[in-house]
Amino acid sequence: MPTRLSNYFLRTLREDPSDAEVTSHRLLVRAGYIRRQAPGIFAWLPLGLRVKAKVERIIREEMQAAGAHEVHFPALLPREPYEVTGRWDEYGEGLFRLKDRKGSDMLLAPTHEEVFALLVKDLYSSYKDLPLSIYQIQDKYRDEARSRGGLLRGREFTMKDAYSFDYTDAGLDVSYQLQRDAYERIFSRFGLDYEIVQADAGAMGGSKSEEFLHPTSVGEDTFVRSSGGYAANIEAFRTLVPADKDFTALPAAQVFDTPNTPTIQTLVDKANAEHPRPDGRVWTAADTLKNVVLALTSLDGTRELIAIGVPGDREVDLKRVEVAFAPAEVEAANEGDFAKNPGLVKGYIGPWGLGVDETRSAVLGEKSTTGIRFLVDPRVVAGTEWITGANEAGRHVFGLVAGRDFAIDDVVEASDVRAGDPAPDGSGPVELIRGMEIGHVFQLGRKYAEVLGLKVLDENGKLVTVTMGSYGIGVTRILAVIAELNNDAKGLIWPESVTPFDVHVIATGRDEIVFDTSEAVVAAIEATNREVLYDDRRKVSPGVKFGDAELIGVPWIVIVGRGAADGIVELWNRRTGDREQVDVADVAKHFV
Amino acid sequence: MPTRLSNYFLRTLREDPSDAEVTSHRLLVRAGYIRRQAPGIFAWLPLGLRVKAKVERIIREEMQAAGAHEVHFPALLPREPYEVTGRWDEYGEGLFRLKDRKGSDMLLAPTHEEVFALLVKDLYSSYKDLPLSIYQIQDKYRDEARSRGGLLRGREFTMKDAYSFDYTDAGLDVSYQLQRDAYERIFSRFGLDYEIVQADAGAMGGSKSEEFLHPTSVGEDTFVRSSGGYAANIEAFRTLVPADKDFTALPAAQVFDTPNTPTIQTLVDKANAEHPRPDGRVWTAADTLKNVVLALTSLDGTRELIAIGVPGDREVDLKRVEVAFAPAEVEAANEGDFAKNPGLVKGYIGPWGLGVDETRSAVLGEKSTTGIRFLVDPRVVAGTEWITGANEAGRHVFGLVAGRDFAIDDVVEASDVRAGDPAPDGSGPVELIRGMEIGHVFQLGRKYAEVLGLKVLDENGKLVTVTMGSYGIGVTRILAVIAELNNDAKGLIWPESVTPFDVHVIATGRDEIVFDTSEAVVAAIEATNREVLYDDRRKVSPGVKFGDAELIGVPWIVIVGRGAADGIVELWNRRTGDREQVDVADVAKHFV
Repeated sequence: MPTRLSNYFLRTLREDPSDAEVTSHRLLVRAGYIRRQAPGIFAWLPLGLRVKAKVERIIREEMQAAGAHEVHFPALLPREPYEVTGRWDEYGEGLFRLKDRKGSDMLLAPTHEEVFALLVKDLYSSYKDLPLSIYQIQDKYRDEARSRGGLLRGREFTMKDAYSFDYTDAGLDVSYQLQRDAYERIFSRFGLDYEIVQADAGAMGGSKSEEFLHPTSVGEDTFVRSSGGYAANIEAFRTLVPADKDFTALPAAQVFDTPNTPTIQTLVDKANAEHPRPDGRVWTAADTLKNVVLALTSLDGTRELIAIGVPGDREVDLKRVEVAFAPAEVEAANEGDFAKNPGLVKGYIGPWGLGVDETRSAVLGEKSTTGIRFLVDPRVVAGTEWITGANEAGRHVFGLVAGRDFAIDDVVEASDVRAGDPAPDGSGPVELIRGMEIGHVFQLGRKYAEVLGLKVLDENGKLVTVTMGSYGIGVTRILAVIAELNNDAKGLIWPESVTPFDVHVIATGRDEIVFDTSEAVVAAIEATNREVLYDDRRKVSPGVKFGDAELIGVPWIVIVGRGAADGIVELWNRRTGDREQVDVADVAKHFV
Repeated sequence: MPTRLSNYFLRTLREDPSDAEVTSHRLLVRAGYIRRQAPGIFAWLPLGLRVKAKVERIIREEMQAAGAHEVHFPALLPREPYEVTGRWDEYGEGLFRLKDRKGSDMLLAPTHEEVFALLVKDLYSSYKDLPLSIYQIQDKYRDEARSRGGLLRGREFTMKDAYSFDYTDAGLDVSYQLQRDAYERIFSRFGLDYEIVQADAGAMGGSKSEEFLHPTSVGEDTFVRSSGGYAANIEAFRTLVPADKDFTALPAAQVFDTPNTPTIQTLVDKANAEHPRPDGRVWTAADTLKNVVLALTSLDGTRELIAIGVPGDREVDLKRVEVAFAPAEVEAANEGDFAKNPGLVKGYIGPWGLGVDETRSAVLGEKSTTGIRFLVDPRVVAGTEWITGANEAGRHVFGLVAGRDFAIDDVVEASDVRAGDPAPDGSGPVELIRGMEIGHVFQLGRKYAEVLGLKVLDENGKLVTVTMGSYGIGVTRILAVIAELNNDAKGLIWPESVTPFDVHVIATGRDEIVFDTSEAVVAAIEATNREVLYDDRRKVSPGVKFGDAELIGVPWIVIVGRGAADGIVELWNRRTGDREQVDVADVAKHFV
């Protein structure tokens, strides 16, 4: 039986929704697929539900092919397991928390590592039970600060999350690869380009992680890619570290007055004008060392100041710093911080006076006057010379040599990443690309199993901790990405794998022969096992019907109109726009 | 491809879960269908998910047959729509409430009348768009005070909720009947007995409502049924009201000292001994009027005392009183209440001194000394004579006649219902039966549409308020009820309509011919389009395999064992226990 538009719960809209920032959101609302209920929270209308079911079916098929078993967990869970792993706090404001009538803390799960691990702990006890991969397609909750882009980043969203359980590292590698391969098949079936990039495991923890990023201008992530095959998201990018330099022949550092140098450029100009290097090399911004003071707030509320030294031609990328210090929060030091630390002379902060590593500093005869941790960009290797603050107002030190004149506490990936930066694997300069995360695979390792006590007996009867993987695909986000990629000025154009209907038959005109012919055409197409949306509305103009069809985006449209009297209908390819006159008797052949 | 037990996420348990109060809970956990995560909150394991999908499919088919369109709403919703209808407060502690990061109030929806109505308001505007029925199969949340019985009353549970929209009362009748008929088909397909009983609309409001109750000893509801066809749940039961009596010939009321009458029976005995009726009729407990003082607390916190007069042979049923005064909360008056109202002489409260209806009381020359509302059981009709309190310690009034000697403010259904009570429609005495609510249909009428402003233009271009129906089926509860009804001492026995697999094939023994034969049998059965669970485990004893099969409850079991060498297998009917020797070549014929 076809779905008849004369009796279908659908209302297409002429106006774009006022809050729609991206094309997919705009079109999915206008074409009657979804409807907003609250920021980042949507209801699914019949058309949308059909597409969603098809997206889920494809994911389900590939999960089964990968040997994963389907389960389904609640969204509403008790606090305790998340307390044990620390994520009850780590998630910060992103977690929806609530209390039940007895005052027990509960949460709306943003992801389910804890309870999957506990389920396996509950039921399994031997290496013979492993490997195991289980998954669910389920609604998740994250209280995003800014839920934007319709389904691209919702606060309630459907996700496929799978978890693997092994007792050896080699086993985890296999399970991980099975999911990774399944993801490649899934995205191919959706017709989605993707880049597999190295990712930072972030709050998930674990040892290895890769993201599937779909390159798109509406993407919220940035990743880098070299022509030689390196790919990583910005947070996971690692700087190509130069070799240490021989500093035996370098001149001694000197402190100069540097008034009126409010910017790096004015400082560099003054340096080249008044204090040129003896060997004639000019000073550049990259020769200055900018020491930025940041405040870290850990989960227990402890606030610590740190200083990060980066070359003056770079900026500190707070997102990268956040990853380095997760789950602590990072912000710029404020006036109060400076007031409390007179050793920090604003605008003239230098390595002297920073640092907590007294052993290393002592070798260089340094003494920390601030007790503040001093970390540097990986480019600050031994032997590099810098113009940097002298910890005195209006004065800088020139030719300060790392490893000779100052010590560091640690290296940190804090600088921004730029197009042209060399890939760390030597595969050439990188380009920067915007992308949308559509999948993420993690080797969690034993982190969760350890704290949750998930162990099995191995071949020797010894208890060993299980090693886990976690694999997520945003179901509703993928639907939006597909919509984002498949549309034109008139509306959506669905790929055949997820279209809500295979064929959209439109009866135009008032003659009964049109409707009789349409019924016959519909029946013939349905006999080929295709799903038909039949626009049988009697009092709607052809123009409105065509407009609705273009907006809704079923890839094939059959127009039954005046030609019906001569046994002719029109077959319209929504994607190419091609229209073809076809004998009524032959229409169905196009769908065999 | 069969599901192979050697590689399936399943662990059957020998021990009953300690918290299981009912058979379905015990067996579903032991057989590996579900797993508890928190009180009233369960995870679905692969077997359970298969059964749940089949239950949902049947419901979905019948909803489609009834012309309803499927949509899907979020569980997490904003407060506002529920504030408008008053249910944000009315739901009391049963509602899971939370705040998002911006401090906005949100809830986990217990039911979706509000947002369905708003969706239709959003999209539709004409009578031509109606009638419309839309439904979803979706997870709901209710913070039950006592979540018991596993899936029978969960705090997170799956429900099918449908809503109908009409613009005439006659239209609503038709939409209601379509859903009601669909429910009858659904329950028949599940093999569930049910009784359709009149129900009280309760917090849902509306004009007409019926419950589908499955008679079962684990049921939480009680309903009454007469042999003549009357059926109602206890809350909706209406007392057969006797006709008013002529009281012209009755003697005047008299007040007597009645010391040492702590119970109704002692009072009746004293009455018959010391103050017999002139006409010789004996006093019985049913001739005494017991006036019970209760406190109502309305949603805004206002507390009001009321007195309810019921025949002394009846008890006040607080659940029935609660329904009468919903959404106010009802409790017995406390010592403080009595202390504040000296007009209430505990143990001797009588109609004199009660009441707020001064007009009526004035006719009888009464004067309320308490200002407390006085309501009575429907049996207290004009002309009935009572022994009741005289509002003085140690004294009762005899032969106080309703409508002659005292006035009432209102009638209320407050007395308990007992087997043998006459049905209000004259269809004879009722019996009391315990049942489990498995479906509920409501004619909401215009209550929700009115406050939410859901109107459409009618044929005359006039704005008319839409009339709604609401229709719910507990998906997960039904699954539990089916399990509750289909089991024996060994385990579950699924009906064919919802069984996780159609056939369970067990290979017993170590010979390869057993496994080869099993594979052939599995393939032959699958060729008949049946789903097969294949126990191909090599190191598990036949006894354990049989035990698992009985516990899991697939209705047909094929045992491939020693007979395989002779081309013989055993076909086991799990329900009847019958076992039959069958030629390998003929097994599949049993499933054609």
